[in-house]
Amino acid sequence: MRKNLRETLRSAIQEGRLVAGTTLPSSRTLAVNLGLSRGVVTDVYDQLAAEGYLAMEPRHAATVAGVASAALAKPEPATPEWRFDFSATTPNVELFPRRPWIRSVERSLRSASRDALDYGDHRGRIELRVAVRNYLARVRGVRTDPGRIVITQGFTQALDLLCRVLAARGATTLAFETPSLPDEWATVRASGLRLLACPVDRHGLIADKLKQSDAAAVVVTPAHQFPTGVVMTSARRTALVRWAAGEGRLIIEDDYDAEFRYDRAAVGALQGLDPGRVVHVGTASKTLAPGVRLGWLSLPADLVDEVRACKGASDSGSPAIDQLALADLISTGEYDRQVGRARHLYRRRRDQLVDALSARLPHLRVEGAAAGLHVLLRLQESVDDSAFARMAASRGIAVRALSPMLLAGGRDRGLLLGYGRLPFERIDEAVESLARVIGRDGG
Amino acid sequence: MRKNLRETLRSAIQEGRLVAGTTLPSSRTLAVNLGLSRGVVTDVYDQLAAEGYLAMEPRHAATVAGVASAALAKPEPATPEWRFDFSATTPNVELFPRRPWIRSVERSLRSASRDALDYGDHRGRIELRVAVRNYLARVRGVRTDPGRIVITQGFTQALDLLCRVLAARGATTLAFETPSLPDEWATVRASGLRLLACPVDRHGLIADKLKQSDAAAVVVTPAHQFPTGVVMTSARRTALVRWAAGEGRLIIEDDYDAEFRYDRAAVGALQGLDPGRVVHVGTASKTLAPGVRLGWLSLPADLVDEVRACKGASDSGSPAIDQLALADLISTGEYDRQVGRARHLYRRRRDQLVDALSARLPHLRVEGAAAGLHVLLRLQESVDDSAFARMAASRGIAVRALSPMLLAGGRDRGLLLGYGRLPFERIDEAVESLARVIGRDGG
Repeated sequence: MRKNLRETLRSAIQEGRLVAGTTLPSSRTLAVNLGLSRGVVTDVYDQLAAEGYLAMEPRHAATVAGVASAALAKPEPATPEWRFDFSATTPNVELFPRRPWIRSVERSLRSASRDALDYGDHRGRIELRVAVRNYLARVRGVRTDPGRIVITQGFTQALDLLCRVLAARGATTLAFETPSLPDEWATVRASGLRLLACPVDRHGLIADKLKQSDAAAVVVTPAHQFPTGVVMTSARRTALVRWAAGEGRLIIEDDYDAEFRYDRAAVGALQGLDPGRVVHVGTASKTLAPGVRLGWLSLPADLVDEVRACKGASDSGSPAIDQLALADLISTGEYDRQVGRARHLYRRRRDQLVDALSARLPHLRVEGAAAGLHVLLRLQESVDDSAFARMAASRGIAVRALSPMLLAGGRDRGLLLGYGRLPFERIDEAVESLARVIGRDGG
Repeated sequence: MRKNLRETLRSAIQEGRLVAGTTLPSSRTLAVNLGLSRGVVTDVYDQLAAEGYLAMEPRHAATVAGVASAALAKPEPATPEWRFDFSATTPNVELFPRRPWIRSVERSLRSASRDALDYGDHRGRIELRVAVRNYLARVRGVRTDPGRIVITQGFTQALDLLCRVLAARGATTLAFETPSLPDEWATVRASGLRLLACPVDRHGLIADKLKQSDAAAVVVTPAHQFPTGVVMTSARRTALVRWAAGEGRLIIEDDYDAEFRYDRAAVGALQGLDPGRVVHVGTASKTLAPGVRLGWLSLPADLVDEVRACKGASDSGSPAIDQLALADLISTGEYDRQVGRARHLYRRRRDQLVDALSARLPHLRVEGAAAGLHVLLRLQESVDDSAFARMAASRGIAVRALSPMLLAGGRDRGLLLGYGRLPFERIDEAVESLARVIGRDGG
């Protein structure tokens, strides 16, 4: 009764049904009216006075205090339902191993120490840092140790932390591949750093521009450049590592989808060549699902303290249960099995997509098909690829244009065709629909 | 075999057993030596060349390329095992409802839509925002709607996001209660904002100092001030809300442990008085466990877009599975039951602690016992409370001193005695040991 009366009066005041200045009945009267004991009413009046909703003076009746009104948030525009979804940044989330994940949560929560759920080392749970170290050494040729790993909320937070640490060290400029993902530019700019565009050709990033710049670091995607799909050549890797040998320079390796290489074994991470200058960033966003929001930084030893402190100030560390579950998934081998299953399925989709494109759009070049979860459909220079993307959207096809990803402008044009969200049996129809949008003009 | 040979050679180069310039045997020779097919060896050489570990020129034997060495991270100092742990910032993590959490993960993963595991609204999963809205309205008198809620990684990230948004708006100064938690000052400073100390007396924050300042916002703990334990009075609430009515001013309400009130129903949140000027921040860190790392911001409508964008740039959103599980825990009533169980247990511990203190240290005042998970043991002004804390540590007692929490210095001295980590049956002994450290001097 006490709780009901309190909530009734409080809402009436909050919603303006009882306006400021209104005198309430005495506790005795209200108690009689409602069939309550007077003590209950007095308690509720006291409570609401303590909260600031009522003004009470000795020997006076309680009056309603002024309360400000609340504006509602703007309603959200509904997300469109796509007929065909060529999104290039997301994997097939239907593959997420729900049952193994539940089992891993259960197993790790059952055996977790008391400390596991408390505040802890801001680098993350040691169980996950050990599992990630072993996985990265085995699968990616990364040289690290658990002490140099910091667990993050995916690549976005890894980049955010690095930018903040570099800015605090006095850096002003971060080099980025062009083309690259505009969402990531936003993260860099939020930390106050300037972006320098570094061009990519069919061998990967051209390090020349870096040499004449004051960039403190460069973000690269050597295993499968996003969005062009280029695999960085050996010569370019060597040139890049040579640039980084200069005072205080850093390479940030975004190793986002290297697990999915189709024509041969995945090229090992750049980080292995120079662990003192290359920060390796991996995530579970493509191998499991973006919603897992777990990533891992392998840091040069002299960056660990700063990144750890920045992680602490940002969010006091990543969620413990997810970390324990992922550690269990990796160390039981379930993670590898999952990656294997996914690779098999993506390869089939990729083959189907490449076949359909060569059948329906034979005059256009398909690039970057060796790895990852998307290909680049190259269009003629200087056509309006964004207009194609808009036209496609109006026909229920989600597809992203290349030109908005050119950090410093340029003539490259194309469409990014991801197959994470496109089921195998829909690919042919999707390409047929897309071909109708592009027609002969894009070639 | 291919994989083994690749990893063997790669590690040998990475670890310096094969030094730069070393000529490798021809693929033919190595194949014969190892009993492998020549194709396997050629593949491995190609792979390692692509990764940058080998230099290959046509018609020349492969040579080892230079690889930089890696420094190990410094080994961590081991965390001490405390005899008695009076930590004031952590709850009893042994109460974490492991089985209900597992059931919630299972139930929500079974029924989750495909989209739930994909990238999504940076404010967080709608299921959790709806559950939190209902909970906050019911339990804390907060006026919000799911569109104005942003899910965060606990209070730390909520504060970080707000600071970054305020700084981007041009704010220079954030007011903070003194005393307060130094960890939080670090978060504020990381965003480039200056801290202004606002004193707290036994009625709560004194808003006078705010009026003469250029502070854009103030962070307060009205339900149970940290660390003094003061509950902000009605008059102070009104004064604070009046200050915030000025142009572009904001109150950030850290509602960290309001669920644990022992002498009466918890005082409703300040936010209810003015949802257009007060940001309410709640978390699961005290009710469930800090390792859950989930919190929720209830924002004024005009802050939503900026905070959402900042959350996106920081980490692309919080983990999906945890959000779904917590939404399930709240909406099935399990969360309320958990809070009820915890409140009952903490009340027993609190009573025991207060009794033990009045028996063993009757000359010292105990403050802030009405709510929360800690009390403040007030010492004489200007004694060296940090020296007491150090002396206690040397005897295996973890306890924090008050004076390092004074943002602008001052004469207040005391010790924070938390009972989240101190089992009921150890309290008496713990206080006895502490009393021996303090002796007669602290009184």
